Amino acid sequence: MTRKELIQNIKNKQSFLCVGLDTDIKKVPKHIAEGENPIFTFNKAIIDATAEYCVAYKPNLAFYESFGAEGWSALEQTVKYLRDNYPDQFIIADAKRGDIGNTSQLYARSFFEHLGVDAITVAPYMGQDSVTPFLGYNGKWVILLALTSNKGSHDFQLIKDAEGTPLFEKVITTSQQWAGPEEMMYVVGATQGKMFEDIRKGAPESFLLVPGVGAQGGSLEEVCRYGMTGDCGLLVNSSRGIIYASSERDFAEKAAQEAVKLRDQMANELKKHGII
Amino acid sequence: MTRKELIQNIKNKQSFLCVGLDTDIKKVPKHIAEGENPIFTFNKAIIDATAEYCVAYKPNLAFYESFGAEGWSALEQTVKYLRDNYPDQFIIADAKRGDIGNTSQLYARSFFEHLGVDAITVAPYMGQDSVTPFLGYNGKWVILLALTSNKGSHDFQLIKDAEGTPLFEKVITTSQQWAGPEEMMYVVGATQGKMFEDIRKGAPESFLLVPGVGAQGGSLEEVCRYGMTGDCGLLVNSSRGIIYASSERDFAEKAAQEAVKLRDQMANELKKHGII
Repeated sequence: MTRKELIQNIKNKQSFLCVGLDTDIKKVPKHIAEGENPIFTFNKAIIDATAEYCVAYKPNLAFYESFGAEGWSALEQTVKYLRDNYPDQFIIADAKRGDIGNTSQLYARSFFEHLGVDAITVAPYMGQDSVTPFLGYNGKWVILLALTSNKGSHDFQLIKDAEGTPLFEKVITTSQQWAGPEEMMYVVGATQGKMFEDIRKGAPESFLLVPGVGAQGGSLEEVCRYGMTGDCGLLVNSSRGIIYASSERDFAEKAAQEAVKLRDQMANELKKHGII
Repeated sequence: MTRKELIQNIKNKQSFLCVGLDTDIKKVPKHIAEGENPIFTFNKAIIDATAEYCVAYKPNLAFYESFGAEGWSALEQTVKYLRDNYPDQFIIADAKRGDIGNTSQLYARSFFEHLGVDAITVAPYMGQDSVTPFLGYNGKWVILLALTSNKGSHDFQLIKDAEGTPLFEKVITTSQQWAGPEEMMYVVGATQGKMFEDIRKGAPESFLLVPGVGAQGGSLEEVCRYGMTGDCGLLVNSSRGIIYASSERDFAEKAAQEAVKLRDQMANELKKHGII
């Protein structure tokens, strides 16, 4: 999906919501966990209930890998279901990969060609030749970890160099030499508040994928105040708050209600910033 | 596997060789690529030919993921085959994972419980709570990326803070507060030469997993000169140089020959350093 298409989808749907498909078999409703193909069955119901209110889905690979080949197969079915039924959804494999060049090339092939997602999250630690193999696929994206939402983000990402520039800013400015805002986004946690201002100095136009609203405590309003651009420039993710809104038979309905709530807040922000 | 057992295996076999199972279907001999279950068939033949000369195997997940559910299944078969037939081999999932706490916990479950490997490589960028969920499994190991073998290692890993300490050293010293040398190792590329001295200042006893000998140009002799400890403290990996030593029907035999060559050099180094 191109940047232009993504922005158009956001305007059409008045939403920049990404639904995180962190599907944990221990948390899905009992009648699904005990049935056939539980992971895909759950995802399908969540997708059908929420697709109207979001522009992206983000399966986190850990949840699928924890079931080995079976989990991987459920992931493949989920991506295919999205492609066949909701072709305007932006699909992000939250994989946080990154390896030496020839290995990253294989990951790129795996995610973009075999699995067929639009974007993959990549860890920057190994530098340029671990990231660039994911670039140059038409309409595909790298989403580089910059400033994550967890407590441990303070351990290394905030270390300042001799000039006082923290590592996450170096990651942003250095990686902008590898790719522009047409094929690179950054992960910035919603919990980082005012630091979005620093991010925007280094990446004024790039889309940011923002986890951490909801369960992790980040504020949508604050994220928009400091992070929104004239093109929106944000994909805000919610996982647990939507997909586990209920653990009963009404889980899909409740998920839709939570997605609508966020969509309404997002529509409001888009209007406030003059985007729609 | 405990540290004591690993050291004993190294002494018994006079080898600290790790064979990298970077099995690429495009590079395996034609008669195998065209047969049934080619990835596992290839791995099995390589393992049977080399197990006598090495103490560890390291499948890189990218190679398996590039075939989706089918590749994952071949990986599961490979690990099971090693466990059943060569229980003294240390199995490393080269996965370079790392995510927020509850997600890393799932990865840990996936690799240590479901897949059943001894160790997993982890990327440090997201900090403490992305690493610690992998700790505390009895006899299981985290192998944290410190100074990698690729060119891009210079982009961020060498950035110095205000006191002049490069990021990779901060990763080592900080992470030593999370776990000791009984359950944490570090990845240090063989191409980094004298920088092994700096690594050893921060991690005098830790085992180092060293890729980059062979195809990537690192020198075994240099790695041992600067990195070897009284307990050996090294696992040196070779992937392509062994498993693709021949692309003909004699591939397993040639792989064994290459493994023997390295084992002989390693035995020599172990003697030189008074370890055997």
